[in-house]
Amino acid sequence: MRIAELSRRSGVPIPTIKYYMREGLLPPGERTSPNQAQYEETHLRRLKLARALVEVGGLSIAAARDVLTLMDSQMNSLSALGKAQYALTTRRDHVEDEAWTEASRQVDELIAKREWRVGPRNPARLSLTEALATMHRLRQDDYFALLGEYAETVGHLAELEITAIMGRPDLDSMAEAVVIWTAIGDAVVSSLRRIAQEAETARRFGGYVDD
Amino acid sequence: MRIAELSRRSGVPIPTIKYYMREGLLPPGERTSPNQAQYEETHLRRLKLARALVEVGGLSIAAARDVLTLMDSQMNSLSALGKAQYALTTRRDHVEDEAWTEASRQVDELIAKREWRVGPRNPARLSLTEALATMHRLRQDDYFALLGEYAETVGHLAELEITAIMGRPDLDSMAEAVVIWTAIGDAVVSSLRRIAQEAETARRFGGYVDD
Repeated sequence: MRIAELSRRSGVPIPTIKYYMREGLLPPGERTSPNQAQYEETHLRRLKLARALVEVGGLSIAAARDVLTLMDSQMNSLSALGKAQYALTTRRDHVEDEAWTEASRQVDELIAKREWRVGPRNPARLSLTEALATMHRLRQDDYFALLGEYAETVGHLAELEITAIMGRPDLDSMAEAVVIWTAIGDAVVSSLRRIAQEAETARRFGGYVDD
Repeated sequence: MRIAELSRRSGVPIPTIKYYMREGLLPPGERTSPNQAQYEETHLRRLKLARALVEVGGLSIAAARDVLTLMDSQMNSLSALGKAQYALTTRRDHVEDEAWTEASRQVDELIAKREWRVGPRNPARLSLTEALATMHRLRQDDYFALLGEYAETVGHLAELEITAIMGRPDLDSMAEAVVIWTAIGDAVVSSLRRIAQEAETARRFGGYVDD
């Protein structure tokens, strides 16, 4: 298909498609003349995935490129799946103040208590530490009482997710699920949480926010 | 205190402080001379909150300003708390294709099945619909089997969160918890989820990603 059809079928504007190609999120089409190229169904599929990671998953262009490159190159082991998942977590600078030290201790303790085996370089250790350090800096001391229940609940979800993913027929399709479910799953969970919070408030006190 | 001390105690660079002031995230200090201003502890607290919303919570500057303005102005009822929570969810354009229609039906069904009372204008309805529509567009049909469990689990967390928040002494401090726990809580949940997924994979198959 030509780029206009690729745009129509994906719902992605042509300038965005060209931008994704320049940034390496989407391979170029096959040139059929100096100013025309041909695209296949694989382009359409990849374009939908790239857009989902950036727009719904909130990944930066660079992070999306890293994840997609990993998916292309080395999906031949479980450890490769793990690396794709690592690439989905944004790494940021952090200040190692008292709040950070305390949060870091809490993260280690939480992982040890649940007997979770987690690689020392899993970037989610750092993003969790930063989030908890922020709670300390903002003096949300009553939040920490919820942490054990959060971990238990999320552990239950992870069991279901891994079971479903491992039910897929091959590593490529498992890798796709790891990437999509992790990135888009964040949006599902955070939206559901906001809905459930309103529902729980309404259950106790009656009335919608809109009332 | 002067701006240099505000910067030192918050860990926020002076140019960022000035940017937040220009954008209305932080009220100006009290002028003590043509090129000096004085800041109070309330500025420090507000600055930490603004930074947390933007950097850890991932809010846009405009969304953070809306949330902070709401917190300042009208925290006199539960419905005001709900409005602050609404402002934390980014609204985006969406395409109403087949995937959207199907996702929208699923969201209504899920809310009805759990007998959740949710305002028709809760923006999380739209963000959940968009996330599920993305799953449809990427043909992740096996994902939808998990949705019921997700909702149940998240409902349990919401109960704990609302109970803890309602234990606070006044509406101002409840509003602060709603905003902080919702925004920073997203980062906690998504990080925990990634950690639990690795732990669950390691439990079944042995070995870290780093091995």
